[in-house]
Amino acid sequence: MDRVPVLKIGDILLVSIQIDLDDQTAMQLQEDLSDRIVETGAHGVVIDISALEIVDSFIGRMLSTIAAVSRVLDAETVVVGMRPAVAITLVELGLSLNGVRTALNVDKALDILAASKQIHGVGVLTVAEDDGV
Amino acid sequence: MDRVPVLKIGDILLVSIQIDLDDQTAMQLQEDLSDRIVETGAHGVVIDISALEIVDSFIGRMLSTIAAVSRVLDAETVVVGMRPAVAITLVELGLSLNGVRTALNVDKALDILAASKQIHGVGVLTVAEDDGV
Repeated sequence: MDRVPVLKIGDILLVSIQIDLDDQTAMQLQEDLSDRIVETGAHGVVIDISALEIVDSFIGRMLSTIAAVSRVLDAETVVVGMRPAVAITLVELGLSLNGVRTALNVDKALDILAASKQIHGVGVLTVAEDDGV
Repeated sequence: MDRVPVLKIGDILLVSIQIDLDDQTAMQLQEDLSDRIVETGAHGVVIDISALEIVDSFIGRMLSTIAAVSRVLDAETVVVGMRPAVAITLVELGLSLNGVRTALNVDKALDILAASKQIHGVGVLTVAEDDGV
Protein backbone atom coordinates (compact mmCIF):
# COMPACT_ATOMS: atom_id res chain seq x y z
CA MET A 1 0.00 0.00 0.00
CA ASP A 2 1.15 3.51 -0.76
CA ARG A 3 1.90 5.56 2.30
CA VAL A 4 2.56 9.28 2.54
CA PRO A 5 5.72 9.89 4.63
CA VAL A 6 5.54 12.22 7.63
CA LEU A 7 8.82 14.14 8.07
CA LYS A 8 9.87 15.71 11.37
CA ILE A 9 11.68 19.06 11.20
CA GLY A 10 12.39 20.36 14.68
CA ASP A 11 8.98 20.46 16.40
CA ILE A 12 7.07 20.60 13.11
CA LEU A 13 5.75 17.69 11.05
CA LEU A 14 5.84 18.05 7.27
CA VAL A 15 3.72 16.07 4.82
CA SER A 16 4.06 16.44 1.06
CA ILE A 17 1.08 14.92 -0.73
CA GLN A 18 2.07 13.78 -4.21
CA ILE A 19 -0.06 10.73 -4.89
CA ASP A 20 -3.76 10.36 -5.52
CA LEU A 21 -5.27 9.60 -2.14
CA ASP A 22 -7.88 6.87 -1.92
CA ASP A 23 -9.95 6.27 1.23
CA GLN A 24 -7.44 3.89 2.77
CA THR A 25 -4.34 6.02 2.11
CA ALA A 26 -6.11 9.10 3.49
CA MET A 27 -7.17 7.21 6.65
CA GLN A 28 -3.63 5.88 7.04
CA LEU A 29 -2.21 9.40 6.70
CA GLN A 30 -4.57 10.73 9.38
CA GLU A 31 -3.55 7.91 11.72
CA ASP A 32 0.17 8.29 11.01
CA LEU A 33 -0.02 12.03 11.59
CA SER A 34 -1.92 11.76 14.88
CA ASP A 35 0.50 9.07 16.10
CA ARG A 36 3.51 11.20 15.20
CA ILE A 37 2.06 14.33 16.86
CA VAL A 38 1.63 12.42 20.13
CA GLU A 39 4.99 10.65 19.80
CA THR A 40 7.03 13.78 19.01
CA GLY A 41 5.00 16.45 20.82
CA ALA A 42 5.01 18.48 17.58
CA HIS A 43 3.20 21.81 17.82
CA GLY A 44 2.62 22.28 14.10
CA VAL A 45 1.76 20.36 10.94
CA VAL A 46 2.61 21.63 7.45
CA ILE A 47 0.86 19.94 4.51
CA ASP A 48 2.28 20.66 1.06
CA ILE A 49 -0.22 20.20 -1.77
CA SER A 50 1.82 21.83 -4.56
CA ALA A 51 1.87 18.54 -6.46
CA LEU A 52 -1.93 18.28 -6.49
CA GLU A 53 -3.66 19.48 -9.64
CA ILE A 54 -7.12 18.78 -8.27
CA VAL A 55 -8.46 19.24 -4.75
CA ASP A 56 -11.99 17.84 -4.61
CA SER A 57 -14.42 17.67 -1.71
CA PHE A 58 -12.84 14.41 -0.51
CA ILE A 59 -9.36 15.95 -0.17
CA GLY A 60 -10.88 19.15 1.24
CA ARG A 61 -12.71 17.18 3.93
CA MET A 62 -9.55 15.21 4.72
CA LEU A 63 -7.56 18.43 5.21
CA SER A 64 -10.28 19.81 7.51
CA THR A 65 -10.32 16.56 9.52
CA ILE A 66 -6.54 16.51 9.87
CA ALA A 67 -6.62 20.13 11.06
CA ALA A 68 -9.39 19.35 13.59
CA VAL A 69 -7.66 16.25 14.97
CA SER A 70 -4.31 18.09 15.17
CA ARG A 71 -5.94 20.97 17.04
CA VAL A 72 -7.29 18.58 19.66
CA LEU A 73 -3.73 17.25 20.01
CA ASP A 74 -2.47 20.84 20.44
CA ALA A 75 -0.88 21.20 17.00
CA GLU A 76 -1.78 23.80 14.40
CA THR A 77 -2.12 22.84 10.72
CA VAL A 78 -1.02 24.99 7.78
CA VAL A 79 -1.65 23.95 4.17
CA VAL A 80 0.94 25.29 1.69
CA GLY A 81 1.61 25.33 -2.03
CA MET A 82 -1.95 25.54 -3.27
CA ARG A 83 -2.02 26.25 -7.01
CA PRO A 84 -4.06 29.25 -8.15
CA ALA A 85 -6.31 27.00 -10.25
CA VAL A 86 -6.99 24.83 -7.21
CA ALA A 87 -7.94 27.88 -5.14
CA ILE A 88 -10.34 29.05 -7.86
CA THR A 89 -11.95 25.60 -8.11
CA LEU A 90 -12.34 25.37 -4.32
CA VAL A 91 -14.19 28.68 -4.18
CA GLU A 92 -16.34 27.77 -7.20
CA LEU A 93 -17.26 24.47 -5.51
CA GLY A 94 -18.14 26.32 -2.31
CA LEU A 95 -15.48 24.43 -0.33
CA SER A 96 -14.04 26.66 2.38
CA LEU A 97 -11.44 24.37 4.01
CA ASN A 98 -12.96 24.97 7.44
CA GLY A 99 -10.43 25.59 10.18
CA VAL A 100 -7.46 25.13 7.86
CA ARG A 101 -4.84 27.88 7.71
CA THR A 102 -2.99 28.34 4.45
CA ALA A 103 0.35 29.88 3.49
CA LEU A 104 2.11 30.41 0.18
CA ASN A 105 5.12 28.25 0.99
CA VAL A 106 6.79 26.21 3.73
CA ASP A 107 8.95 29.10 4.97
CA LYS A 108 5.87 31.26 5.53
CA ALA A 109 4.07 28.38 7.25
CA LEU A 110 7.01 27.95 9.63
CA ASP A 111 6.86 31.69 10.40
CA ILE A 112 3.13 31.42 11.19
CA LEU A 113 3.70 28.38 13.43
CA ALA A 114 6.62 30.04 15.24
CA ALA A 115 4.50 33.16 15.88
CA SER A 116 1.52 31.13 17.11
CA LYS A 117 3.82 29.13 19.42
CA GLN A 118 5.09 32.36 20.92
CA ILE A 119 1.57 33.71 21.50
CA HIS A 120 0.56 30.37 22.97
CA GLY A 121 3.61 30.46 25.28
CA VAL A 122 2.68 33.95 26.54
CA GLY A 123 -0.88 32.76 27.20
CA VAL A 124 0.31 29.88 29.35
CA LEU A 125 2.60 32.19 31.29
CA THR A 126 -0.26 34.60 32.04
CA VAL A 127 -2.45 31.79 33.35
CA ALA A 128 0.38 30.62 35.62
CA GLU A 129 0.82 34.14 37.00
CA ASP A 130 -2.90 34.41 37.68
CA ASP A 131 -2.71 31.17 39.63
CA GLY A 132 0.09 32.56 41.75
CA VAL A 133 -1.93 35.58 42.93
CA MET B 1 3.58 14.89 -16.26
CA ASP B 2 4.26 14.03 -12.63
CA ARG B 3 6.68 16.40 -10.98
CA VAL B 4 8.40 16.03 -7.63
CA PRO B 5 7.98 19.25 -5.62
CA VAL B 6 11.07 21.01 -4.24
CA LEU B 7 10.33 22.65 -0.88
CA LYS B 8 12.42 25.49 0.55
CA ILE B 9 13.00 25.50 4.31
CA GLY B 10 15.29 28.35 5.29
CA ASP B 11 18.42 27.88 3.18
CA ILE B 12 17.78 24.17 2.64
CA LEU B 13 15.84 22.52 -0.19
CA LEU B 14 13.81 19.43 0.66
CA VAL B 15 12.65 16.80 -1.80
CA SER B 16 10.47 13.87 -0.79
CA ILE B 17 10.46 11.19 -3.49
CA GLN B 18 7.24 9.19 -3.37
CA ILE B 19 6.51 8.26 -6.95
CA ASP B 20 8.24 5.85 -9.28
CA LEU B 21 10.70 7.95 -11.23
CA ASP B 22 10.98 7.40 -14.96
CA ASP B 23 13.74 8.97 -17.07
CA GLN B 24 11.81 12.15 -17.75
CA THR B 25 10.65 12.77 -14.17
CA ALA B 26 14.19 12.17 -12.90
CA MET B 27 15.64 14.60 -15.46
CA GLN B 28 12.96 17.16 -14.55
CA LEU B 29 13.79 16.78 -10.85
CA GLN B 30 17.50 17.34 -11.50
CA GLU B 31 16.72 20.47 -13.52
CA ASP B 32 14.20 21.82 -10.97
CA LEU B 33 16.67 21.25 -8.14
CA SER B 34 19.60 22.96 -9.90
CA ASP B 35 17.37 25.89 -10.84
CA ARG B 36 16.12 26.26 -7.27
CA ILE B 37 19.66 26.06 -5.81
CA VAL B 38 20.78 28.92 -8.05
CA GLU B 39 17.57 30.91 -7.50
CA THR B 40 17.54 30.59 -3.69
CA GLY B 41 21.27 30.29 -2.94
CA ALA B 42 20.50 27.20 -0.88
CA HIS B 43 23.53 25.60 0.74
CA GLY B 44 22.01 22.17 1.30
CA VAL B 45 19.69 19.64 -0.31
CA VAL B 46 17.84 16.97 1.68
CA ILE B 47 16.32 14.08 -0.28
CA ASP B 48 13.84 11.87 1.59
CA ILE B 49 13.50 8.35 0.16
CA SER B 50 11.51 6.81 3.03
CA ALA B 51 8.62 6.11 0.67
CA LEU B 52 10.80 4.10 -1.73
CA GLU B 53 10.70 0.34 -1.28
CA ILE B 54 13.24 -0.24 -4.04
CA VAL B 55 16.34 1.76 -4.93
CA ASP B 56 17.84 0.32 -8.10
CA SER B 57 20.92 1.39 -10.02
CA PHE B 58 18.89 4.02 -11.91
CA ILE B 59 17.78 5.78 -8.72
CA GLY B 60 21.24 5.30 -7.21
CA ARG B 61 22.86 6.97 -10.22
CA MET B 62 20.31 9.80 -10.11
CA LEU B 63 21.09 10.48 -6.43
CA SER B 64 24.83 10.53 -7.21
CA THR B 65 24.28 12.92 -10.12
CA ILE B 66 22.11 15.26 -8.02
CA ALA B 67 24.80 15.28 -5.31
CA ALA B 68 27.55 16.00 -7.88
CA VAL B 69 25.61 18.82 -9.57
CA SER B 70 24.65 20.34 -6.21
CA ARG B 71 28.27 20.24 -5.06
CA VAL B 72 29.34 22.21 -8.13
CA LEU B 73 26.64 24.74 -7.20
CA ASP B 74 28.03 24.88 -3.63
CA ALA B 75 25.25 22.88 -1.98
CA GLU B 76 25.70 19.65 -0.04
CA THR B 77 23.29 16.75 -0.51
CA VAL B 78 22.08 14.45 2.26
CA VAL B 79 19.82 11.45 1.57
CA VAL B 80 17.53 10.52 4.46
CA GLY B 81 14.97 7.87 5.40
CA MET B 82 16.57 4.90 3.69
CA ARG B 83 14.84 1.69 4.73
CA PRO B 84 17.05 -1.09 6.17
CA ALA B 85 16.01 -3.45 3.34
CA VAL B 86 17.02 -0.82 0.77
CA ALA B 87 20.43 -0.41 2.41
CA ILE B 88 20.98 -4.18 2.35
CA THR B 89 19.99 -4.40 -1.31
CA LEU B 90 22.28 -1.49 -2.26
CA VAL B 91 25.27 -3.20 -0.65
CA GLU B 92 24.39 -6.55 -2.21
CA LEU B 93 24.15 -4.88 -5.64
CA GLY B 94 27.53 -3.24 -5.07
CA LEU B 95 26.02 0.25 -5.36
CA SER B 96 27.88 2.67 -3.12
CA LEU B 97 25.99 5.96 -3.70
CA ASN B 98 29.22 7.75 -4.55
CA GLY B 99 29.58 11.16 -2.96
CA VAL B 100 26.15 11.01 -1.32
CA ARG B 101 25.93 11.61 2.41
CA THR B 102 23.16 9.86 4.31
CA ALA B 103 21.38 10.51 7.60
CA LEU B 104 18.65 8.65 9.49
CA ASN B 105 16.11 11.46 9.37
CA VAL B 106 15.55 15.07 8.29
CA ASP B 107 16.49 16.51 11.70
CA LYS B 108 19.88 14.77 11.60
CA ALA B 109 20.44 15.91 7.99
CA LEU B 110 19.77 19.52 9.02
CA ASP B 111 22.32 19.13 11.85
CA ILE B 112 24.92 17.82 9.36
CA LEU B 113 24.24 20.69 6.95
CA ALA B 114 24.35 23.30 9.72
CA ALA B 115 27.70 21.91 10.93
CA SER B 116 29.17 21.81 7.42
CA LYS B 117 28.02 25.39 6.81
CA GLN B 118 29.83 26.48 9.95
CA ILE B 119 33.05 24.70 8.96
CA HIS B 120 32.76 26.20 5.49
CA GLY B 121 32.28 29.65 7.03
CA VAL B 122 35.41 29.26 9.20
CA GLY B 123 37.37 28.14 6.13
CA VAL B 124 36.42 31.25 4.17
CA LEU B 125 37.35 33.44 7.14
CA THR B 126 40.82 31.85 7.37
CA VAL B 127 41.49 32.46 3.69
CA ALA B 128 40.44 36.10 4.11
CA GLU B 129 42.87 36.48 7.04
CA ASP B 130 45.68 34.96 5.00
CA ASP B 131 44.99 37.47 2.26
CA GLY B 132 45.26 40.30 4.75
CA VAL B 133 48.79 39.34 5.87
